[in-house]
Amino acid sequence: MEIAVVGLGVIGGSFVKALHEIKQPEDSIYGIDIDQTTLDFAREGGYIVYGEQKNETILQEADLVIMGLYPEAMKVFLKEHMNEFKKDAIILDTSGVKQILLKDIETYFPPQADLILGHPMAGRESRGFAYAEGTIYKNANFLLTPIESNKEENIEYIVDLLYEIGFGRVTITTPEIHDEMIAFTSQLTHAIAVALMNSDQYEDETIRFVGDSYRDLTRIANINENLWAELFMENRSYLLKVIEQFKEEFTKLEAAVEKEDVATLIELFQKSSKRRQALETSDYKLNKEREKIQIEKSRNDFV
Amino acid sequence: MEIAVVGLGVIGGSFVKALHEIKQPEDSIYGIDIDQTTLDFAREGGYIVYGEQKNETILQEADLVIMGLYPEAMKVFLKEHMNEFKKDAIILDTSGVKQILLKDIETYFPPQADLILGHPMAGRESRGFAYAEGTIYKNANFLLTPIESNKEENIEYIVDLLYEIGFGRVTITTPEIHDEMIAFTSQLTHAIAVALMNSDQYEDETIRFVGDSYRDLTRIANINENLWAELFMENRSYLLKVIEQFKEEFTKLEAAVEKEDVATLIELFQKSSKRRQALETSDYKLNKEREKIQIEKSRNDFV
Repeated sequence: MEIAVVGLGVIGGSFVKALHEIKQPEDSIYGIDIDQTTLDFAREGGYIVYGEQKNETILQEADLVIMGLYPEAMKVFLKEHMNEFKKDAIILDTSGVKQILLKDIETYFPPQADLILGHPMAGRESRGFAYAEGTIYKNANFLLTPIESNKEENIEYIVDLLYEIGFGRVTITTPEIHDEMIAFTSQLTHAIAVALMNSDQYEDETIRFVGDSYRDLTRIANINENLWAELFMENRSYLLKVIEQFKEEFTKLEAAVEKEDVATLIELFQKSSKRRQALETSDYKLNKEREKIQIEKSRNDFV
Repeated sequence: MEIAVVGLGVIGGSFVKALHEIKQPEDSIYGIDIDQTTLDFAREGGYIVYGEQKNETILQEADLVIMGLYPEAMKVFLKEHMNEFKKDAIILDTSGVKQILLKDIETYFPPQADLILGHPMAGRESRGFAYAEGTIYKNANFLLTPIESNKEENIEYIVDLLYEIGFGRVTITTPEIHDEMIAFTSQLTHAIAVALMNSDQYEDETIRFVGDSYRDLTRIANINENLWAELFMENRSYLLKVIEQFKEEFTKLEAAVEKEDVATLIELFQKSSKRRQALETSDYKLNKEREKIQIEKSRNDFV
């Protein structure tokens, strides 16, 4: 099988490395990346057999194409190359926002291939192929948002491949639910981390006073500014909604501190504790379910 | 040497386990805890030689006493036992707020012993001796807030002991600076995590959509409600101040999303990235310094 990965940053690069681990002797992995040094590095490391800065022959021969591009770059790439994909190729998108992407690429859908939209819930603070690791996908969530034109057997093929790569849970959902949930679990968390980091008034001295909580909450404040500005803009209305929800809860807590209302404070702490424990419990339960799903090789329907 | 630990929860219990690792053959560790099962468990595990639910003989013989109590409980314990400590004993406090504690215990200072106020920047979400581990202190910060009555050689003894236990950095500061910084690095982060967790509108479905960022930011939302309500109340004014600072930064970010102001968004992301990277750099630099401090066995002055 011929596999192409487009964009060898952390996401695409991690796919290259993960696929390298599980590939069969007859499989070959190719890379397309605007940066020649990255391609050379990937080839010299034995991860790809051949790379191109701009597609010349790779897409025409690839049975599976994994796109490691930002939403905007994804649109530009499809527009330029929509007719170059091999007949019946499967293309897997991995970008972070779905509704606007669908709208943007509406007229650039490769007619002869099957483009499947997906989103791995994993990443790294640092950028580039050097920081890519197949292990970032181990036990991670993967979200698939199939559209009507997708072939059932291709979705099943991708689900199997993702589990083989090591993803912990593949969920099939709609672009709308994806975007709403991601605004909460991913964009809001990044907004909070950035604001927390920027509200530090002490800078050089802070490090002496931190525990794990501050380290954990600010880790993602080291952020890829162009990618995240794009994601924030493209998921703007859902993000503004969850920002409001968070502010409401934060204000409840602030009011309790202000009024020295210990009873409410304890109630809020108990609620969050119960919820955080439930998150872990459902994580465990879903992992049990997953085992069954993997055996049956069936789709793991969420909606 | 006779060492007593009062309160065998996560903090005290972790001291018991850490001390157990480094103790000399002639040292003995004793425990005081209101829960007999905990004492039995610690004794059967070989961590303490003997325990008492209420002090009878332990404090009278201990050369070093480590207090693993909440601020309120600390006050009650000192009031009741202030005259029972051995002459020239060193008592190390580990509670989370300093200014109000100092005020509260003003009249309960053990006259014949040297009470040193300190705060390990480490903990666990789960409670009790079973979750205590000496390793939680490895590379962690420890804050010491000496007062005039503390003997210089006792402070030095404690600094050495803490490094021997495995703390990564011992900082000497004032109760005021301690409380202000802790409001930011510890109480604010817990307030944010609780509000984020409580703002989840999706509950059972959320787990399918989370990545590491959501897990990291909500880990401490599983919170010991009584301890933290106490800490929030006792450090109320500093906490309200840093809540305001955070809200201001969060509002900047929200406004940029609202107005589709990509330039400001990118600026905020760049600022937080730079700061987060600087945090790691100064962490590394201070660790280099620490080596020097350990060799010289001198005090690591912050103020």
